[in-house]
This record gives sequence, structure tokens and C-alpha cells, in this order.
Amino acid sequence: MNFCPQCGSAEIELRVPEGDNRPRHICNSCKYIHYVNPKLVVGCVPVWKQQVLLCRRAIEPRLGYWTTPAGFMEIGETLEQAAARETLEEACAEVEIEDMFAVMDVVRAEQVHVMFRARLLAERFAAGDESLEVALFDEADVPWDEIAFPSIRFSLQRFFADRSEGKRRLHVTDSARVPRQ
Amino acid sequence: MNFCPQCGSAEIELRVPEGDNRPRHICNSCKYIHYVNPKLVVGCVPVWKQQVLLCRRAIEPRLGYWTTPAGFMEIGETLEQAAARETLEEACAEVEIEDMFAVMDVVRAEQVHVMFRARLLAERFAAGDESLEVALFDEADVPWDEIAFPSIRFSLQRFFADRSEGKRRLHVTDSARVPRQ
Repeated sequence: MNFCPQCGSAEIELRVPEGDNRPRHICNSCKYIHYVNPKLVVGCVPVWKQQVLLCRRAIEPRLGYWTTPAGFMEIGETLEQAAARETLEEACAEVEIEDMFAVMDVVRAEQVHVMFRARLLAERFAAGDESLEVALFDEADVPWDEIAFPSIRFSLQRFFADRSEGKRRLHVTDSARVPRQ
Repeated sequence: MNFCPQCGSAEIELRVPEGDNRPRHICNSCKYIHYVNPKLVVGCVPVWKQQVLLCRRAIEPRLGYWTTPAGFMEIGETLEQAAARETLEEACAEVEIEDMFAVMDVVRAEQVHVMFRARLLAERFAAGDESLEVALFDEADVPWDEIAFPSIRFSLQRFFADRSEGKRRLHVTDSARVPRQ
């Protein structure tokens, strides 16, 4: 932050506010304190019969790689609404959101990822603006070497493992503990 | 936002960026786009023997009311680390974080609350800067009429219900579905 978003002053200083214990960008003119916090990335694994719906990314990072529908949670929506909206935007697909099954701290990206199981309401989908293509995959055909992010690979692996065991668990992990490949 | 935090321009407009679908504050001078997303509030229910540790708030909102240790997640930490840090700050108490048991969308506050079960490592606690007092409560003595927030009441109720049934469940809810009192 170079300028105060409240008063426009350039008198910005990085220091610990009174009663706080970590440095924040503070405006010395109007006393505005700028807080930055981790963002929520929310998505789901949409299922149609035994297959899962994946999107091939049309945008960086990881353009050309496969992911589940997921994206930044917005103001004014719940986690479930965010997961359904992202699926509609990226895969032009309607889903019923089921249970939360994975929560991953991605500290270096300043994010927390939350993933739900979901049910595709019809066999209708298409590439949204942020996708090159969207397709249904059997477990055996998932392109594991072309998955966009470690957190997506982790959640897909847990999704299939739970399904094969007939269990519905919640997996909470730190992405630093998830293998990169 | 009145001024661009990047270039200091006052030419801020609220409009939908290209390729986006909702209005954002955009700087017409340097093209900076200001994204605002829900924040994570993370806490825990620290347990010592059969009692739970609660804090009486020394700050607004809800000054004088009781809460579990909880607060805004910071950059550079995991959810579990945030819950432990808040407990240390507000209750001067060390905990071992156990499992996540409640996730609550608090849409009108632009927050998502995440609550863990936790184990107090010793019968040592004290009021931190943001607390008037800190105390252990038996379930029967919890001051239900003086709990600070509906999401805290919800998570405490679920915590005790699960414990009495010997279960460890995850409760995901929208605060709009939780009674205010």
C-alpha cells in the first residue's frame, strides 16, 4: 500500500498499532489501519453417476491444467453458495452441494481452501470463461499428472478414498504437509 | 475506498471489471482493482477436565459478554495456529487444538467462523488485553444469556450435545438459520 485508501495521504508506515502485536500498514495522517487476512477459496467435486466433473483452466496460474470448480468466496454468500456459483461460472453446471469434506491451509498463498462433495443435477455442462474444456472422468481416467494444484489433488484423492470405503469424512490439512506432485 | 492505494488517484469507480461479473472499486488511473472477500474468524473451546474456558470481552462489540477464544485469522498461519494464538492472546492459555467441529457462515458480518475442540495443557489462564476475565465453567453453569454472539452460542451448544452423545461431528451452518437468542 503506497497511499491511504481513505484520505489519499502518502504518509503510510508499517508498524504495530497500539494494542496489536503485528505490523500493519497505517496512515499517519488519518490513522486508517489496513488489515490483510487470508482469503477463502471454495469449490466442490460435482458427481454424475460415478464420474467427477473437472475443468481445464483457461487462465493463469496453471493454464491448461485440470481442477475441480473452485474460486474466491465473495461478500454476501455462504460457503455452499460460493461453491455452487463457481461451478456454474466455470463449468456452466448446476449442482446440489452436499457435505464439506476437505479444508486445507495454503499458508504461502495466504488462502484457506474448502471443498464440498456435490451432485450434478443434470448431465449438462460446458466450458465457462475461465475454462478451456469441462469433462466427466471415471476415477481410473483422472489426469493425475495434469492436476493444477496440490490442494486439488489432495482433495480428489481423499474424495475417491472415502467413496471406495463408503465413508464421509472431513479432512483438515496444511498444504505444507501435502506432496507437491 | 476514496483513493487508490497503489497510485493515490481519486478517480475511483465502482463497476464490473472486464471478465468479472460483480462491481469492484477500480482505479481509472492505474487500473488497480480492489477485491474484498469474507474474513475468517477462528477459535476453539478449550477443555480442562469437564470444564470449558470462556472469556468475558473487554472490547466492543458485546463488551462484558462471554465468548470462547476466537479472532481474525492472520496471514502466515494455519487455522489451528490461529485458534491457538487467539487462546494465548485472549486467555493467556496454552492449548492443543483437536478437531474442527463447527463452521458458520456469518454473511451479514462478511465472515466465516471456524471452531475447534481443544485441550487446555494446564490449569493456567488469565485475562488477556481483550478480556475482562477468563474462567472455567461446568456445562450447567455456562452463562447462556450472556454469550456474546449467536455463532458462539451455536458452537457451544453443539459442543456439549456432541460430548454428551460421545460423538465428534462437524456442524456446518448459516448463521441466518441460528436463533439470535
